[in-house]
Amino acid sequence: MAATPWYFVAVLLTILTSSQGILTTLSQSNGGYKYDYATVPFLAEVFKLIVSGLFLWREMRTSSSTTSRITTDWKSVRLFVIPSLIYLIHNNVQFATLTYVDTSTYQIMGNLKIVTTGILFRLFLKRKLSKLQWMAIGLLAVGTTTSQVKGCGEATCDSLFTAPIQGYLLGILSAGLSALAGIYTEFLMKRNNDTLYWQNLQLYTFGSLFNVARLIADDFRHGFEKGPWWQRIFDGYSITTWMVVLNLGSTGLLVSWLMKYADNIVKVYSTSMAMLLTMVASIYLFSFKPTLQLFLGIVICIMSLHMYFAPPHTLVDLPVTNEAHAKTLKQVVVEEKTDS
Amino acid sequence: MAATPWYFVAVLLTILTSSQGILTTLSQSNGGYKYDYATVPFLAEVFKLIVSGLFLWREMRTSSSTTSRITTDWKSVRLFVIPSLIYLIHNNVQFATLTYVDTSTYQIMGNLKIVTTGILFRLFLKRKLSKLQWMAIGLLAVGTTTSQVKGCGEATCDSLFTAPIQGYLLGILSAGLSALAGIYTEFLMKRNNDTLYWQNLQLYTFGSLFNVARLIADDFRHGFEKGPWWQRIFDGYSITTWMVVLNLGSTGLLVSWLMKYADNIVKVYSTSMAMLLTMVASIYLFSFKPTLQLFLGIVICIMSLHMYFAPPHTLVDLPVTNEAHAKTLKQVVVEEKTDS
Repeated sequence: MAATPWYFVAVLLTILTSSQGILTTLSQSNGGYKYDYATVPFLAEVFKLIVSGLFLWREMRTSSSTTSRITTDWKSVRLFVIPSLIYLIHNNVQFATLTYVDTSTYQIMGNLKIVTTGILFRLFLKRKLSKLQWMAIGLLAVGTTTSQVKGCGEATCDSLFTAPIQGYLLGILSAGLSALAGIYTEFLMKRNNDTLYWQNLQLYTFGSLFNVARLIADDFRHGFEKGPWWQRIFDGYSITTWMVVLNLGSTGLLVSWLMKYADNIVKVYSTSMAMLLTMVASIYLFSFKPTLQLFLGIVICIMSLHMYFAPPHTLVDLPVTNEAHAKTLKQVVVEEKTDS
Repeated sequence: MAATPWYFVAVLLTILTSSQGILTTLSQSNGGYKYDYATVPFLAEVFKLIVSGLFLWREMRTSSSTTSRITTDWKSVRLFVIPSLIYLIHNNVQFATLTYVDTSTYQIMGNLKIVTTGILFRLFLKRKLSKLQWMAIGLLAVGTTTSQVKGCGEATCDSLFTAPIQGYLLGILSAGLSALAGIYTEFLMKRNNDTLYWQNLQLYTFGSLFNVARLIADDFRHGFEKGPWWQRIFDGYSITTWMVVLNLGSTGLLVSWLMKYADNIVKVYSTSMAMLLTMVASIYLFSFKPTLQLFLGIVICIMSLHMYFAPPHTLVDLPVTNEAHAKTLKQVVVEEKTDS
């Protein structure tokens, strides 16, 4: 599985992430959810946990103990609680941000995550990017934002630049935390040669626990008026809801794979392209009006993609020295250490 | 004068072009012109003709006959009528386009000129651009278009994608002709070592003649109801109108200079940046509402500028070989043959 080229996984992630938005819309009835949406991420975590467990079991059975490494030291295991903790803080900051800014401004600010991921990628993972790659990351954020510019004739106008300063500061904090969770996960996945499935198992065990805690907290907040969560977990579930769960779980597994064998920037490109793909699909599926800004956003993001990933010498016509060629290859080549 | 760095002239052109839009708005009263706007380009041509004549006279007097070359052969002189001819055709195509599409769509399509200039620059002047520079030119067009996206809450909505196909085809033709005029002028200015002022003199003589012809044609079209053009040429002129004339004339002279000592791409960047500068200035001068799309457009255009003009090795971290370094320098260095 580690021998799969990273761009194949990235394209698959793009398609599945894009389907996520469409499936979620399709799972609604009369503009609302008949089921408790908080159960979806919980079940997705459980799905990922089961899949990773099965894969780990298969790997342990078939391969010798030398190829698949497992670190069970508590000092190592406890690190896997940190992504869940960051997501918990992030959810609360997100909630606080939305008390200051409207959802459309929040969505626009969400594109900051692309830039903060680049910055933390450089600061924490010490990965060097060329000036052109930095510009490409900036352009990706500009491109996704462009596609979201509220068009002429839309019901509600953007109230950009008008929210209190706290709203913007919390938005930046939110983008930072979201990037931090991704960067920290990449650090976890790459810090040792442990097999991916064992790393996933630890990640999703904590993920499942935090999601259960969230469901219990919700129950307490609503005074158990609808009964405890485990009694009504599948209430209102349709085939589409199950597809949302399986889809969310699958994207999660692909993201884990990318964190280990590619990196956060690849993930950021995948999810950004997925957003644009969803918007294009919505034109056909939900008869959304195609806008000039969507077209411009797509052009910008495709250029950004090319700027970031194309071998530099093909872009600038500089003569290729051996050193330059080696550098280019190093960026593209995927680590192929374990499994396969 | 030829020793002036090209970027200094480009920045000056940006500022003056930007002032042109603002001065033209200021010269209006009650949303309309009290003067005949067709007299403005005519007087600007005459201004350029006089200035070029004076400079040529000074140059001929001070320098020896070997340094300032003048080709008076009719076979050479007659070539200078072609830019005026192209502009004449362009004006008519522009008029025809506007019968199919609204002004806002026409303005958006005007950004195509950036791309057509790049293409003709490659095809007719045989100038090679790197892939990155092509992307930069594309991004410049995307950036200026982004800044013009009609915002939420504006009175009239863009009717993009709804005009008849003829409108779009004429728009493309218009962009092609506009680029062709620029490219042909660059070819004229660079085809021999004639002094710039003599080349200008020929260009502006034909320019003045075509503008007179236009004023006469207008008179015939309106049946001389207001009298012939020379009797009412300065009617309704204010100090601001004169500033519009002088400003238009000055930008014309700077463009000529750039055609000889730099190139069309530099000019395209200047005028695109000027458009954005005008929009920013309008926020302060005419209390225009700042929009997210203007901000995004500015970021995109600045990135494009950097991508096009920065020495490639600073962008991609490739080791600099002597050959690469020489290539970079060749792009930046301005021909400094005559004058100085």
